[in-house]
Amino acid sequence: MDDARRSNALVCPAYQGYPRNQWYVVAFSNEVKRELLQRRVLGDLMVLYRTEDGMPVALADRCPHRGMPLSKGTLIGDAIQCGYHGFTFGATGGCVRVPSQDAIPSKMAVHKYPLVEKWQWIWAWMGDPAKADPAMIPDHHELGLGRAGYTASAIFCMEIKANYQLLHENLLDTSHIQYLHPGQLDNDNAGEATFKTEYLDDRIRIVREMPNTLLNAAMARLFKLPEGSLIDRDLVTETYPPNLSVVQNVFREPGRPNDPPKVHVIVPMAITPGGPRLTYQFTTVATSYPEQRTKQQNDHVWNVFTQDRDALEAIQQGFDELGPDAPEFSVKADQAALRCRQIITDMVRREEARG
Amino acid sequence: MDDARRSNALVCPAYQGYPRNQWYVVAFSNEVKRELLQRRVLGDLMVLYRTEDGMPVALADRCPHRGMPLSKGTLIGDAIQCGYHGFTFGATGGCVRVPSQDAIPSKMAVHKYPLVEKWQWIWAWMGDPAKADPAMIPDHHELGLGRAGYTASAIFCMEIKANYQLLHENLLDTSHIQYLHPGQLDNDNAGEATFKTEYLDDRIRIVREMPNTLLNAAMARLFKLPEGSLIDRDLVTETYPPNLSVVQNVFREPGRPNDPPKVHVIVPMAITPGGPRLTYQFTTVATSYPEQRTKQQNDHVWNVFTQDRDALEAIQQGFDELGPDAPEFSVKADQAALRCRQIITDMVRREEARG
Amino acid sequence: MDDARRSNALVCPAYQGYPRNQWYVVAFSNEVKRELLQRRVLGDLMVLYRTEDGMPVALADRCPHRGMPLSKGTLIGDAIQCGYHGFTFGATGGCVRVPSQDAIPSKMAVHKYPLVEKWQWIWAWMGDPAKADPAMIPDHHELGLGRAGYTASAIFCMEIKANYQLLHENLLDTSHIQYLHPGQLDNDNAGEATFKTEYLDDRIRIVREMPNTLLNAAMARLFKLPEGSLIDRDLVTETYPPNLSVVQNVFREPGRPNDPPKVHVIVPMAITPGGPRLTYQFTTVATSYPEQRTKQQNDHVWNVFTQDRDALEAIQQGFDELGPDAPEFSVKADQAALRCRQIITDMVRREEARG
Repeated sequence: MDDARRSNALVCPAYQGYPRNQWYVVAFSNEVKRELLQRRVLGDLMVLYRTEDGMPVALADRCPHRGMPLSKGTLIGDAIQCGYHGFTFGATGGCVRVPSQDAIPSKMAVHKYPLVEKWQWIWAWMGDPAKADPAMIPDHHELGLGRAGYTASAIFCMEIKANYQLLHENLLDTSHIQYLHPGQLDNDNAGEATFKTEYLDDRIRIVREMPNTLLNAAMARLFKLPEGSLIDRDLVTETYPPNLSVVQNVFREPGRPNDPPKVHVIVPMAITPGGPRLTYQFTTVATSYPEQRTKQQNDHVWNVFTQDRDALEAIQQGFDELGPDAPEFSVKADQAALRCRQIITDMVRREEARG
Repeated sequence: MDDARRSNALVCPAYQGYPRNQWYVVAFSNEVKRELLQRRVLGDLMVLYRTEDGMPVALADRCPHRGMPLSKGTLIGDAIQCGYHGFTFGATGGCVRVPSQDAIPSKMAVHKYPLVEKWQWIWAWMGDPAKADPAMIPDHHELGLGRAGYTASAIFCMEIKANYQLLHENLLDTSHIQYLHPGQLDNDNAGEATFKTEYLDDRIRIVREMPNTLLNAAMARLFKLPEGSLIDRDLVTETYPPNLSVVQNVFREPGRPNDPPKVHVIVPMAITPGGPRLTYQFTTVATSYPEQRTKQQNDHVWNVFTQDRDALEAIQQGFDELGPDAPEFSVKADQAALRCRQIITDMVRREEARG
Repeated sequence: MDDARRSNALVCPAYQGYPRNQWYVVAFSNEVKRELLQRRVLGDLMVLYRTEDGMPVALADRCPHRGMPLSKGTLIGDAIQCGYHGFTFGATGGCVRVPSQDAIPSKMAVHKYPLVEKWQWIWAWMGDPAKADPAMIPDHHELGLGRAGYTASAIFCMEIKANYQLLHENLLDTSHIQYLHPGQLDNDNAGEATFKTEYLDDRIRIVREMPNTLLNAAMARLFKLPEGSLIDRDLVTETYPPNLSVVQNVFREPGRPNDPPKVHVIVPMAITPGGPRLTYQFTTVATSYPEQRTKQQNDHVWNVFTQDRDALEAIQQGFDELGPDAPEFSVKADQAALRCRQIITDMVRREEARG
C-alpha cells in the first residue's frame, strides 16, 4: 500500500462524484420555518419551508415559467407564489395558479424532494422519488442521537469550499489532530498511535489506541475529566458512505479494556455535497454525561473545525491547479480513506451504469 | 402555446446574440464631454468624447500599436494621445503622430463608430459604417421625446448583468408589476388584467386593460391623479427590437375609451447590450402634464428598477448554471415575448448568413 | 518593419511562455528567514526558508502525501513538518518521518530547487537540476551590484498581473516615460529622442540620446544634478532574456561624449514570471554617487512603477478579451522589443523540441 499508483487508480478525492439515490441531511430542523430558505444540494438549488401544519417541504428552486428562483417569492398558505409573474406552486410541486389565465397547464410543476425529519435533522432524497426508502437512513439510536443516558445537541453547519470526499478522508485519518490542532484535542500522541482498520459491509471503522494518555488542560476541559490523570483513550471513526461520519472518544481506566467507559463522547456529522467543490458538515455531539452546551464550548469546536476547513480548501485549490492527476502518496494509515473512496466511487458508477 | 417545447425551439433568452448593423444608444448627451469616457458596447470597448466644436466622437478604445486603452490617454484638441507611447489619433480614427519617427504608417488607425445625437441620446452604429442609415433610428416624436405639450426627461442609465433579451421580455410581460413591485405601480390588478397582443411589422405591442382601477396612494403620487378615485388604465408596451422599448400608461375616465387621456405617461427605454451578460437601460420619461422631475421621483423609479435588475440577474445566473437548454414553460401571455425573441434571432441569423 | 503582420508571426506578448532551464530571482535575501515563505514561480508553488546554518532552501510547496501546502506546516531544525499529518521533509526534499509508521517509503520526496544567493538576490533554477549551471547567472559586477565606487540597494519587489514579456517590452521602449510618467523622469523629450538598437549575442541594447536636456526640478532631485543646467543624457536599456533588464542613465557635460559620466544611475531589475499572467519585478538601484536611500525616494520610484504596472495590466486584460491574435502595429522603435520576443520564443521552443 506504500504506493503512489494504488490510490491514483481511484477517483481523485478532490473530484469525487455523488450518488443521487441517497438521503442527505439538508438542514437542521430549526433552520426550516415559515420562511423560504434556499440551499444548494448536490448542485441543485432547493427551496425549503414548512407547511401550516409544520411539515417540512423541499422543492426545486426555479420557477418553470421564466427561471426565477422561487425562494425569492412569497409563502401563501402551503404554496409558493413566484415573485416575478405570480405563478403559484403547492406543497406537492404542482402549479395551482397562473394569474394571466384560467387554464393551468397540466405539466407545469417543480420537483418535490422526499423529506424525512428525524431527531433534529432533515434528510432529503436526491434521486428518483420512487426509490426513496427511509430505511436507508442510518439508525439514529446507533449514532447516539436520542439514546438513553446521553445528551445530544445540534452544534452547527459548516460550509467548506472543497469536495466532500476530502472531508470523509480527513475524519478517517484522525492522526491529523496532533498536527492540525496541536494541543487542542490530544497530548501530542495521536500521530504515532497504533490503529486498526475494520470493514463492516459498506461501513469503515478505524480505531486509534492511545493508552496511558496524560490528560492536559485542554482535553480535561473538553471531555470533563480530571487534568493530570492517566487514561486509556480510543479514538474511533466510523464512516457511513456517502453521507455520514461519526467520531467517538472512549475513555477508560488504564488497563481495563472491558470496563464500561468513564466518558463517551460521540460526534455524528452528516456530510452533504453542495456541489463538486462545496460541502456541508452538519455537526452534532452526544455525551455520556448530562450537559447544557454553552456558546463557549460550541465556539471552541467551531474554531477547531475552521482549521480543517482551511486545510481542505487549500488542498482543493492545489488539485484545482494541478488537475485530477496530481500525484498522492498513500501509506498504511490511508487504507481506511482509500476504502471509503472506493465505496463511494462504486456507488456513483453503479448509478451511472444503470443510466 | 401552453407548451414547454415551443419556446425552446428559439434561442435561450439568456444567450441572445445581437445584430450589429443597428443603432444603439451608448450614452446620454450629458455623459459625453471634453473628457475621455470608456463604455463597453456589444462587447467592444469604445472611447467617447466631444471635439472642440462639441461634436460627439466614438473610437475603438485600443491603441493599435501596443494595445493600451486610449481612454487612459489625453485629449489634445480633437485628438487622443495614447498614454503609453504617445501615438496620436484624430477624430476620424486615423493616426496623426508617431513620436519616435516622422513617417506615419498609412494603415494605422482605429475604428470610428458613426454617431447620431438626437434629443438627449447618443446613438452609435455598431456594424459596417457604409450601411449606417440614420433613418433606422426610431422616430423620437413618436416616442414622446420632444412632443408638444409633453415634458420629457432623461432619468438614468442602469447596468444589468444579464442578457438584454431578458429585459425586453420583462417589459413585454408587465403583469410582473403586481408581484415584483407589489403596491408600487398597480393596485394588485396587473396580474389578472386582460390583454391583447398586436404585431406591427417588426414591432410588438401588448396592451393590458385595467378598467375601474381604484387609485391607491402610491399610484396617485406617481401619476398625479386623485387618490381614491376610479380610473380606466391601459398599460401598453411597444417593443422596437433590438434596441428600444416604450411603456405607456394611459388613464381615462371610466367607460369613456374614446376620450383623450386624462394623464399619459410614456417611458421610452433604450436597451443596449454591453456584452452577452451586460445590458444598459437608458431610461427616460415623458408626461402629458408639465413637471420638474425631482431627485425623489427619480430615486423612486430607480428603486423599482433595481427589483427588475435583481430578478434578471438571478435568472441569468440560473441559466448560466443550467445552460441554454434549461427548460422554460410559456403561456399565452408570453406570446409577445416569444415574438420579440424570434425577431431578434432572425436579425442575428440574417447577419450571420450574409457573413 | 512598419508592418502589422511582422510582429504577429511571433508569439503574442501577453502569452509568452517561459524557459525552465534558467535561473530566476525568487526573493530578496532579507525575505527568506527562519519562517516558511510561499512564492509562486513559473506556475509552481515554492516554499522558501533558511536552515539553521543560514543556507536558503526552496522546496515544492505540496506534501506528496495528501497535497497540503508545506508552507502551512512547521519548520523544525532544517526540516518542514507538514501541518496536516506530520510527514516531515529535510532540506534535501527527502521524507525523514512518517508519524504513523516506522518505514519511510523511499520514493517519498519533494522537489528541491537549486539556489544561488548572490549579492541580495536569491536565484532559483527552475528546470532539470542536473543542468543547473551557476555560470549562467549574469555577472553582478557588470550590473553595477557590488561595483567599487557605486552604492547599490535593493528597493522593492512589485507584482504585476500581466505576462513578463510585456514588462520586458515596456523597459525596451523607454520613450514611454514622456507619456506614462509625464514630468517625472524626463523633460518632455524622451518620445522623440533618436535611438540606436544593438544586438550582442543573446542580449539587446537600445540607447536613446537626449543631448542638451534642460534639467527640470524632478530630474534634478532624482539624479542629484543642478536644476536648470543643460546635460547630455543617454538612456540605455540592456535586456538579458529571459530574466533581467538593466536601465542606465548616463549624464555627461554637453558635447563631451568621451568624458566619464558626471552621474551614472543603473537600475537592474530581475524579472521573474510567477505564472502566465503574473510577473515579479525585483528592482534595485546602483548610483555612481554615495547615498543612503530614503523611504521617500523609494516611494517615489514605487509610484512611478505602479503606472507601468497599471498599463501592463490593462494591456493584458485587453489581450485576454480579444485573444492572442489581437493585432498590434509595430514601428522602428519596436525592433528591440520584437527581438527580445523572438529570443525568448526561441528559448521556449528549443526546450519544447528537446522534450
